[in-house]
Amino acid sequence: MTDNAFGKPPVSVLGLGAMGTALARAWLAAGHEVTVWNRTPARTEPLAAAGARVAATAAGAVAANELVVLCLLDDASVGEVLADADLTGKDLVNLTTGTPGDARARAEWARRRGARLLDGGIMAVPPMIGVPDSGGYVLYSGPRALFDTHRDTLAVPSGARYVGEDPGFAALHDVALLSAMTGMFAGVHHAFALIRKEDIAPGKFAGLLADWLVAMAPMAHTTAERLESGDRTTGVVSNLAMMVTGNATLLRTADEQGVSTELLTPYTELMARHLEDGHGEEDGSGMVDLLAR
Amino acid sequence: MTDNAFGKPPVSVLGLGAMGTALARAWLAAGHEVTVWNRTPARTEPLAAAGARVAATAAGAVAANELVVLCLLDDASVGEVLADADLTGKDLVNLTTGTPGDARARAEWARRRGARLLDGGIMAVPPMIGVPDSGGYVLYSGPRALFDTHRDTLAVPSGARYVGEDPGFAALHDVALLSAMTGMFAGVHHAFALIRKEDIAPGKFAGLLADWLVAMAPMAHTTAERLESGDRTTGVVSNLAMMVTGNATLLRTADEQGVSTELLTPYTELMARHLEDGHGEEDGSGMVDLLAR
Repeated sequence: MTDNAFGKPPVSVLGLGAMGTALARAWLAAGHEVTVWNRTPARTEPLAAAGARVAATAAGAVAANELVVLCLLDDASVGEVLADADLTGKDLVNLTTGTPGDARARAEWARRRGARLLDGGIMAVPPMIGVPDSGGYVLYSGPRALFDTHRDTLAVPSGARYVGEDPGFAALHDVALLSAMTGMFAGVHHAFALIRKEDIAPGKFAGLLADWLVAMAPMAHTTAERLESGDRTTGVVSNLAMMVTGNATLLRTADEQGVSTELLTPYTELMARHLEDGHGEEDGSGMVDLLAR
Repeated sequence: MTDNAFGKPPVSVLGLGAMGTALARAWLAAGHEVTVWNRTPARTEPLAAAGARVAATAAGAVAANELVVLCLLDDASVGEVLADADLTGKDLVNLTTGTPGDARARAEWARRRGARLLDGGIMAVPPMIGVPDSGGYVLYSGPRALFDTHRDTLAVPSGARYVGEDPGFAALHDVALLSAMTGMFAGVHHAFALIRKEDIAPGKFAGLLADWLVAMAPMAHTTAERLESGDRTTGVVSNLAMMVTGNATLLRTADEQGVSTELLTPYTELMARHLEDGHGEEDGSGMVDLLAR
């Protein structure tokens, strides 16, 4: 299949979970010819009704188009599904969730099979795909030229951001952002637990909480500056000694309110350890070094 | 001392750490007469030079004005410093850091001594005090009428937000917001640890990270809605089962990158436990119930 009358490259999409389906729909809606395959054929039916071509086999879906998007269960599935496919000359875009190590190994596997591979990490949930200005985006890493070739097509379902030649970087950025979010959600759930048995409306508290986190999130820039300069003390407003003192109030309050401290203590203990090691005048960026052993 | 020529009530400030000093300066700059006291007299000198009256004793500072602001080391210091003071008819604003339980007990202590007490939790660092639109604010709780009486004066150094009659609510909101922030910072430090040994500029990564956290912070509203309705499943886009699967990738990536998982595992284990208990179709708000025992 070649570019259609509107110059829009055709795309094959393998894997029609919620995300793969949303991606295929977005390309269809934008006028791309789309060939789909899924292990369970029933999932192809709504897309066929929307104009997609359905391949009977994964190898057939790969054969149909130069640009092949993979959105499978996990990295092992990629190897299994494409075992019999001829990948020679194909441009693979792997949106399957995995680690940086998975992505690096998969890029090498693709190279040996005669294909080029871009790895992607999707920073969006399926309802955001194909929605302009949803705020969602996909991180891409791998050969810059490969990204540039398909940039317009990749930008159809969601924003497309290139983060480097190292094929592991998309997954690494993805996991790093999700890990930070996980920490934030742990904090948010602890905060709601603290007010849970009080006469405080969760909805009203949520407004205060979201505003506070939005105001504090840019502190990530301060951490980056400390890591880049190596200067952990100049102009520090709230130092580690003060933070450790403050943490005691957080933990005592959790105890008063009958809330488990299990989510807070690993970080407060890390801070206390660093204070004992003589870093009381620093900001908190030393925690990064303690974690990255 | 009575209201000055401009109708601005005079204020006594006890405790001249960085925060107390910033507060006293802000009131002085706004034209309030300010009387200060500090255990170590040297800290009063710069304020005296800026126009503050200096009381020789804490009892003298209390006697000087109806409105008395306390910004001391900890709750125990409040009892010690005011042991000999005549509190009859005084309006105490206690900005000393403490737990909700400390604040409740201190309000009762003030009542027995003939005073009214507002408790405050400062959501700002000293450099933000007295700076218009700094984004900082102080949470207040206690008698609404007392807050309303002093509202204009309290709004001088920072925004003033009233959160309820329960004297413990300011501290509770304060600690809840700080606890959530602690979780976010733990996540941010873990994220930086993941990229620490890679060829990724911390400053560039910080931009992506801050934007992502700002975009995700409003999820607090979704948690609040789930807690208010009790409905944990309708319209869930990313359910607990999917999150637990995703967590495995976060943990594997940490291992690959040589980063400790100690900050992530308490939360991922809590989620895994809730999944095993049959809550796989829910969103993550069930964690709040597990924490608030």
